[in-house]
Amino acid sequence: MLVRIGVLGCGNVGAPLVDLIASQGPDIEARTGLRLEVTRVAVRDLAKPRAITLSPDRLTTDAPSIVADPEVDLIVELIGGLEPARTLILAALGAGKPVITGNKELLATAGAELFQAAESAGVDLLFEAAVAGGIPIIRPLRESLVGERILRVMGIVNGTTNYILTRMSEAGASYADALAEAQALGYAEADPTADVEGYDAGAKAAIIASIAFGVEVTAADVHHEGISGITATDIAFAQRMGYVIKLLAVAEQDDAGEISVRVHPTMVPLEHPLAAVRESFNAVFVEGAAVGEVMFYGRGAGGLPTASAILGDVVDAAVNHHRGSHATVGRLGVARFRSVHEVESAYYLNMQVLDRPGVLAQVAGVFGTHRVSIRSMEQVGMGEEARLIFITHQARGADVLATLDALSALSAVERIGSVLRVIGRD
Amino acid sequence: MLVRIGVLGCGNVGAPLVDLIASQGPDIEARTGLRLEVTRVAVRDLAKPRAITLSPDRLTTDAPSIVADPEVDLIVELIGGLEPARTLILAALGAGKPVITGNKELLATAGAELFQAAESAGVDLLFEAAVAGGIPIIRPLRESLVGERILRVMGIVNGTTNYILTRMSEAGASYADALAEAQALGYAEADPTADVEGYDAGAKAAIIASIAFGVEVTAADVHHEGISGITATDIAFAQRMGYVIKLLAVAEQDDAGEISVRVHPTMVPLEHPLAAVRESFNAVFVEGAAVGEVMFYGRGAGGLPTASAILGDVVDAAVNHHRGSHATVGRLGVARFRSVHEVESAYYLNMQVLDRPGVLAQVAGVFGTHRVSIRSMEQVGMGEEARLIFITHQARGADVLATLDALSALSAVERIGSVLRVIGRD
Repeated sequence: MLVRIGVLGCGNVGAPLVDLIASQGPDIEARTGLRLEVTRVAVRDLAKPRAITLSPDRLTTDAPSIVADPEVDLIVELIGGLEPARTLILAALGAGKPVITGNKELLATAGAELFQAAESAGVDLLFEAAVAGGIPIIRPLRESLVGERILRVMGIVNGTTNYILTRMSEAGASYADALAEAQALGYAEADPTADVEGYDAGAKAAIIASIAFGVEVTAADVHHEGISGITATDIAFAQRMGYVIKLLAVAEQDDAGEISVRVHPTMVPLEHPLAAVRESFNAVFVEGAAVGEVMFYGRGAGGLPTASAILGDVVDAAVNHHRGSHATVGRLGVARFRSVHEVESAYYLNMQVLDRPGVLAQVAGVFGTHRVSIRSMEQVGMGEEARLIFITHQARGADVLATLDALSALSAVERIGSVLRVIGRD
Repeated sequence: MLVRIGVLGCGNVGAPLVDLIASQGPDIEARTGLRLEVTRVAVRDLAKPRAITLSPDRLTTDAPSIVADPEVDLIVELIGGLEPARTLILAALGAGKPVITGNKELLATAGAELFQAAESAGVDLLFEAAVAGGIPIIRPLRESLVGERILRVMGIVNGTTNYILTRMSEAGASYADALAEAQALGYAEADPTADVEGYDAGAKAAIIASIAFGVEVTAADVHHEGISGITATDIAFAQRMGYVIKLLAVAEQDDAGEISVRVHPTMVPLEHPLAAVRESFNAVFVEGAAVGEVMFYGRGAGGLPTASAILGDVVDAAVNHHRGSHATVGRLGVARFRSVHEVESAYYLNMQVLDRPGVLAQVAGVFGTHRVSIRSMEQVGMGEEARLIFITHQARGADVLATLDALSALSAVERIGSVLRVIGRD
């Protein structure tokens, strides 16, 4: 049975996808009885030389004509961005064609609309590649853990920041040097904002939260803190205390059903599985009420791993379509969000104070006044000044912010440095 | 839409499964429209007190009557062992009922027959729980990576041996003490043979290989080496060289399509993701041609995590059955096995020799004669004797065996200790 695929976009994922379908086609046909054929590919520039296993007459610059083509059964959207991707996907779904996309920006903005359109049309909208590239995470969340009450998902879902933090931890690089190195290797953009300030991870967190909890979460609902303020001092203290600093995307649901979705640098204990996720690798750690701890690890980006995830979805959608079935997300519920001020966490605080008698008692008193309990404190002399490193017990975000405000007002406090959340060991 | 479930076996997985279906039922119904109901449960002893959310009149000792009952839509087999599990599963499939099982022993013995029966009947036979308990690994291999050419799968799939090796590595325990501790904690049986000699891991390796490569592999096809010979000296040398010793189940396919499936203790570099899998946790590391490295981590055993995996399969099978579709493994091909003698690996060898001039040259000469190239060597004086630790480059299994034979014949060689495979860094 022939499945005719239209591919929109032929860049660093589309091109390896076309080749992968050609090379894996016979094996897939043997396993599923489906013969996959890339019928038409939309590109931006017909004149650009391409080394793909496809005759040039299959290329076009007219993406809508592929979606409308009655000879195309299934659409792969790899254009990215909001428009025209959204309109093209809605048109394909409306025409009863399954859609595979890796477009995290669009899903984190208009996911609910798209899932609803797929549900109405009775066809698949699959998007494994949108989160953590080649790592199977969406399908396990949707299917393997469908009967599981998910408590929390914590992901290292941005390879650029993980590479930078790994170089800072393992090679003692400064943030600036590690970023420059990531840029030289092509891991980071010239403008690294989307990565280092957590926007890319935030879009993925929104998608993960939507699937894990079955409610609508968009990128705008995600609280972001980036890694650009992390210093070599923070890294060194983390190591001394048995932690490593990772940028985590966190989605959690409390017993009352309230949801918190956020991205922030986090102190992760060395014995935690996420601590061993190095360089540009990604991992998603899931805590479920019954299954306990589960982690998915792999290449979160790169053309070929992402194309592999797309191909898995293509086969799945083709099989479903052939059988007249589909596996949609359905209608997402309305999320009730817990404010980041209400969320509890342990914190790491690094501050410089004047090294005078009574200062420590004064500082400790401020914590106590604001109901922030100290788990450990370390003081390092620096001549006239001292550095104080605190780890707190679980504390409300608002209480920590109030503590920081009050500390800033103390004349003995010279400077408050990094404030990082801490997981494990509480 | 009501799905009536018959559960065969109500032990440490069946009982939490019944409770999980009761507690998660409303959420599953909201997501899928399917109302799961445990209609009948087969037990061995009706008189045994049970704290499950099920009225006692649903229990029976007559398992075949549940399979035959027209009021039962779907069967969960948790009896274990070969018979009567095999006959009951075949009867259920023959009656057009989807079957969920966690029975690794049966699948590793008669998997091909059962998959074929499911294919003929056009219903699901799902078995996520058979390998690595609560970790989603079978579904990702079958679905997410369906378009992927799998090169190698390496798994820590036995929690007992991983716990023992972790205690030896981290607490300096002897093998005997670590085993006794695992037995006291209930991780190891009174007769630990099936775990420590690799039979349990071997059954899982056979199932993984069958799914990864689409060919029939049974437990009898798996080469086993256990951990009972691992000494504190091996652990110490591994640590000094930056390795940790893990019992790995390995399934690999070479470019010629030949398959090797084996279980053996292995030196894993500390920077490898499998090295961070501690205590009784499991993980399965997959290397694919396009996706690169992917790892799945979690609880490999325990009633509740395993029940969670069963429930994921139940929902999947119920949804498929409702839609008249199914997701079978289909017909497995015939495997062409590569002999363990032909498989190449790097090796660690630990031997005691007389500390005399010329002995090292003599020993090194034996390696060279048998085409085994030495990557590193360490000599530790012990009075009259010396300990030699070798790490080889990639070498054929047969060449290493011949080297060992020839070394044993040397008068200067007092004793050959552990011979372990080494991964990474070559």
